[in-house]
Amino acid sequence: MRANVERQLLADIPLARAMQLRIDSWNGDSLHMSAPLAANVNDKGCAFGGSLVSVMTLACWSLIRLVVEQAGEDCDIYVQDSTVRYLAPVWNDFSADAHLAPGQSWPAFFKALQARGKSRLSAHCEILLADGSIASTLAARFVALRRDATAAGVDAAQSTIAGQSRGVAR
Amino acid sequence: MRANVERQLLADIPLARAMQLRIDSWNGDSLHMSAPLAANVNDKGCAFGGSLVSVMTLACWSLIRLVVEQAGEDCDIYVQDSTVRYLAPVWNDFSADAHLAPGQSWPAFFKALQARGKSRLSAHCEILLADGSIASTLAARFVALRRDATAAGVDAAQSTIAGQSRGVAR
Repeated sequence: MRANVERQLLADIPLARAMQLRIDSWNGDSLHMSAPLAANVNDKGCAFGGSLVSVMTLACWSLIRLVVEQAGEDCDIYVQDSTVRYLAPVWNDFSADAHLAPGQSWPAFFKALQARGKSRLSAHCEILLADGSIASTLAARFVALRRDATAAGVDAAQSTIAGQSRGVAR
Repeated sequence: MRANVERQLLADIPLARAMQLRIDSWNGDSLHMSAPLAANVNDKGCAFGGSLVSVMTLACWSLIRLVVEQAGEDCDIYVQDSTVRYLAPVWNDFSADAHLAPGQSWPAFFKALQARGKSRLSAHCEILLADGSIASTLAARFVALRRDATAAGVDAAQSTIAGQSRGVAR
């Protein structure tokens, strides 16, 4: 199942291929995704910020996708918003650890999905350096829409997202 | 100068090549960057969130880079943190408009750079749909370090960034 989601990412998203992503492990609660520096380098020789945020976003997305699939649900999963902090440059191949944000729970997520065909979830992800210190963090919100509800729901969901987000102070 | 920065981005950042970025225009205050959907598509057939945030980040970065070069300064420019909102799916080739955040000014930025060899700046970027509505927004903070100060300054700057960011509430 892990290998299947990795294959789909690489098949469906050209940038995932360009970044040479790999899903290394998944234990139901967290997911570990890695990428080589060479494919993701910037003008300074360290990891490109766009690669770091992309890997962290896809690690969270893949975690949700795997848990949703395991539960037998058929959903489209969209990222809604995210905040990234770049704390230290990354000079080597890197990996990202994705997990639910504090206060989030899978049972609550699935309860909403079953009731309304749509559910939201916040996830966090970190990129660690070899010494265990944190190089980058991401906090992101996702929305899952049941595929049978997607055609009708995606516009409504995006309207809701737009409405909510425009009200958020920056 | 615009063409030169575009050439450097594509030469130095493999992911910029994979995204097929172009800097379309730059007028000193804002910068317009574009990318084709095909190279940046996701599993749903619309633009991949990682591409949207990467393009918006690089549009802001390129704006700062061009203004800094025009002023005759030689700096490394790092993204420090960013917040992205994905408001509507993007089903076509897309472009990003980068500009300073409200309350930011180039004179204040250069004053700090000249005094300390280091300066910070906040920039905003939007991706617009064909009908003029906003598909995605990015708000990001950058730090510029004079190259002659970089060797000594980058660790100090990253420490400062880390210290600040860990104190920011999410």
